[in-house]
Amino acid sequence: MNPFNYIDNHLTVDGVSVSEIATAVGTPVYIYSKAFFQARLVEFETAFADIPHLLCYSVKTCANLSLLKLSAENGFGADIVSGGELFKAIKAGLSPCRIVFSGVGKTASEMAEALRADILMFNVESAEELETLAQVAGNLNLRAKVALRVNPDVDPQTHPYIATGLKASKFGISHDEAITLYKQAAANPHLKVIGIDCHIGSQLTSVTPFVAAAEKLRDLAIELQSAGLNLRYLDMGGGLGIRYNNEIIPAVSEYAAVLKPLLKSLPGLTLILEPGRRIAGPSGALLVKVLYNKRNGSKNFVVTDGAMNDLIRPSLYGSYHRILPVLRTGASKNVVDVVGPVCESGDFLARERLLPAVKAGDLLAVLEAGAYGYSMSSNYNARLRAAEVLVENGFFRVIKSRESYEDLTRGEYI
Amino acid sequence: MNPFNYIDNHLTVDGVSVSEIATAVGTPVYIYSKAFFQARLVEFETAFADIPHLLCYSVKTCANLSLLKLSAENGFGADIVSGGELFKAIKAGLSPCRIVFSGVGKTASEMAEALRADILMFNVESAEELETLAQVAGNLNLRAKVALRVNPDVDPQTHPYIATGLKASKFGISHDEAITLYKQAAANPHLKVIGIDCHIGSQLTSVTPFVAAAEKLRDLAIELQSAGLNLRYLDMGGGLGIRYNNEIIPAVSEYAAVLKPLLKSLPGLTLILEPGRRIAGPSGALLVKVLYNKRNGSKNFVVTDGAMNDLIRPSLYGSYHRILPVLRTGASKNVVDVVGPVCESGDFLARERLLPAVKAGDLLAVLEAGAYGYSMSSNYNARLRAAEVLVENGFFRVIKSRESYEDLTRGEYI
Repeated sequence: MNPFNYIDNHLTVDGVSVSEIATAVGTPVYIYSKAFFQARLVEFETAFADIPHLLCYSVKTCANLSLLKLSAENGFGADIVSGGELFKAIKAGLSPCRIVFSGVGKTASEMAEALRADILMFNVESAEELETLAQVAGNLNLRAKVALRVNPDVDPQTHPYIATGLKASKFGISHDEAITLYKQAAANPHLKVIGIDCHIGSQLTSVTPFVAAAEKLRDLAIELQSAGLNLRYLDMGGGLGIRYNNEIIPAVSEYAAVLKPLLKSLPGLTLILEPGRRIAGPSGALLVKVLYNKRNGSKNFVVTDGAMNDLIRPSLYGSYHRILPVLRTGASKNVVDVVGPVCESGDFLARERLLPAVKAGDLLAVLEAGAYGYSMSSNYNARLRAAEVLVENGFFRVIKSRESYEDLTRGEYI
Repeated sequence: MNPFNYIDNHLTVDGVSVSEIATAVGTPVYIYSKAFFQARLVEFETAFADIPHLLCYSVKTCANLSLLKLSAENGFGADIVSGGELFKAIKAGLSPCRIVFSGVGKTASEMAEALRADILMFNVESAEELETLAQVAGNLNLRAKVALRVNPDVDPQTHPYIATGLKASKFGISHDEAITLYKQAAANPHLKVIGIDCHIGSQLTSVTPFVAAAEKLRDLAIELQSAGLNLRYLDMGGGLGIRYNNEIIPAVSEYAAVLKPLLKSLPGLTLILEPGRRIAGPSGALLVKVLYNKRNGSKNFVVTDGAMNDLIRPSLYGSYHRILPVLRTGASKNVVDVVGPVCESGDFLARERLLPAVKAGDLLAVLEAGAYGYSMSSNYNARLRAAEVLVENGFFRVIKSRESYEDLTRGEYI
C-alpha cells in the first residue's frame, strides 16, 4: 500500500531509483507515483460502481495538470474552490459538466467564469452568496445549478483547522436556514436547485462521522423532496483520512459500505464525493538532501535543503510525516529534529524523530506529502519552489520545473 | 506613527485614498508607504550615527525590489538567507560589500554565488557549514569572510516559532564550540574571521534580552581578541518588535541607547544590525474586500477576498493584526471572525474581533502586514498572489503586478 519501497536497500518509486531522480532533477523535489495515484482513483470508482455516482477529485490537494489529467482519464470530475482551479481543471481536460465549485468566498467574477464554462453545480455556502450567484447568472442570462452546503454540526474529530462541519465553523448553512434558502432558490428563475452538499472535515480516521452526516443529509433530502424539490445530487464532500503515522484508517470499501445504504433509500439521487488527500497524499513524497548535521545543547538537528516553504504541514498543523533515508544503511539511530534552512524555529519537517544517522549529501524522503504539499508551498525566504516529477511505466519525467531566480522577480517593477 | 490614517472618514495612505487604489488595482493588494518605510530607515541610521555601524535590511521580511532599492538608497546593506535573496538584493542595487548571509542551511551553490559576488560576511551556523564554506572557497580560490553565529541562550520571550536564541533551537553555535571553531577558522587559508554574530529572535518587545545577548557577545569578543583574532564586526541580528495590538514596544532610540555603551567598550568593532519587521511591518497593509456576511450558530463571519494564502501569520502564529474599515461609518459594532475563501477553518485573518458592521463590497485594511505578509504568500487553493503597490509623493504605483491564471501553470507539462 505504498509506492515507495526499498530494493536492495535503495528507495524506489514503482521500481525507479529515487537517487537517480535526485541526480537528474536536484532537490528538493516532489515525486509522485502515477500507478499508485491511478490505483486510488480506480479504488474509489470500483467501490461506488454499483450506485449512481460522480467522483470529483479535490483539486486543492495537488493541482498539477498531469495529475488532473490522470483524474479525468479515469472518469473523475473535479471539486474546485477558485477560478484558478477552474482554469487548471479545464486546461487539464476535465469536463466542466463534471465540475463542482465549493468554497465560502466565491467572487462574482469567479462565478461568471464557472457559469460560462457551464459547470455541473455550485455548492453555495451562504444566503448572500446565493443572492450574488442569482444576480451574476441573471446578468449573463444563464441559470446556475446549485446545491446548498449544509452544516450537519458533526464533530469530525480532526485538527481544528481542517474541521469544517461544526456549527461554529465558517462553512455551510444550518438546517433551518437551508430550508428557507432552498425555497428561495427554487423560486428564482436564474437558479436551478439540483443538489444538497456537505463536507465535515478533512483527514477523518473513522467512518462514524460520515454516517452521522449522511443521515442528516438524507433526512433533509427527503424533507426537501417532500416539499417538491427535484434533487439530483447528494454531495458528501471528501475527508477520508490517510495513514501518516500509526492511524488506523478505514478502507475505501468500508467507507462505501456505510454510505451506499443511505443512498439506496434515496432513489434517483447521484452520490458525489470529493476525495483528494486519500488519492494524492500517499502517492507523493518530498525528496530532500541533507546539508548539515549539528548539535545544539542536548538536541541533534539534521538540516536539509527542504523547508517549511516546501511543506508547511508540520509547522502549520503539527503534522507528522514519515521520513525514510533513501539509502538504507545499518547506521545507528538517533533522535533528531529534521529542519530546513528557513530562518525561524517553526521551520521543521519532523521533531524528536528517531532516524538512522545521516551525513551531508544523503537523501531523505518525506512520505505522504502528495496532498497539501506542493499546493501550499511558497517562496518564503526567496526560496525557489521545488520541481515536481511523475514516475510512470518505469521512467520519470518533470511535470513542473523547478523555479529559477528570474521567477522571483517576475511582475516586479523597480 | 502610522501611515494609514482617516481623512474625512476615508482611510488614506500618506494622503492617498485607499479606495482609489482598490478601484485601480483590485483586491487583495498589499499597500506600502514609501515615506513611512524610509522614515524607519532614517530612524535607525540616526539612532546609531555616532558609532561605527552597518544596518542590513532583513530581506526576508519583505523582498520587493522597490523596497530593497529604497533601503540601498538610504545607506542600508542587506541581511540575506538564500541565493534568491542575494539575487534580488543585487538586482535592486544593494552593494554586495554590504551584504551579510545568514541561515542554517546555506547550500554549496549558494555559497559559491555569494563568494563570487564578494559579499561582506557569512554568518556561519555550524561546524559542518564552516567546513563546507572553506571547501567551496578553496575550490574557487577565494577567501570567505566569516562570523560565527553564537547562540547566547537568551530567552527572547516571543512566539516559540520565532525564538531563535535558545540552546535548544536549530540556530547558532554554543560558546564553547564557537571558541574551537574560531580557532579552526583562523587557521584555514580559505576563511577570514572578521566578525561575531547572534540573533536571538523576532518581535521582541523588551530591550532586556538584547542587553543580555550583547553582554555575552561582548565577553566572547574580548576573549577572542585576547586570543589574537582580529574581529571587525559585531552583528547583533534583528528582532526589535512592533506594535500589532497593545504591545508596549521600545523606541529605536532606546534600543540604541542600551546597545551603544556595549560597543564603546569594544573599540575598532563595527556594529551590524539586521532590522526588518520594524521597518517593513507598519509600512504595509493588506487591503481586502468584503464578499459576504454570514452567521453560523452564534458566530458571525465576514468573508473577504483575502485569505491565509495572502497572509498566513494569523493562522501560523496566531498573530493579531488590526483591521480597519476603509470607510469609517457610524455602524454598530459586532464580534466577528474575518475569514477568507480558502477551504479550511484555519483560514482566518482575525477571530472574535469587534468590528463595525460591513457589507459586501466594503474594503478592510489589515494593518502591520508589511513584514512576513507578501513574502510568505502562496498559491494555495490556486489563488493568485496579490498585487503590491507603493505610495510615494501623493501617488501610487504597482510595484508587483497581480498574478494571472497563466502564472499558475508556468513550468507545468502535461
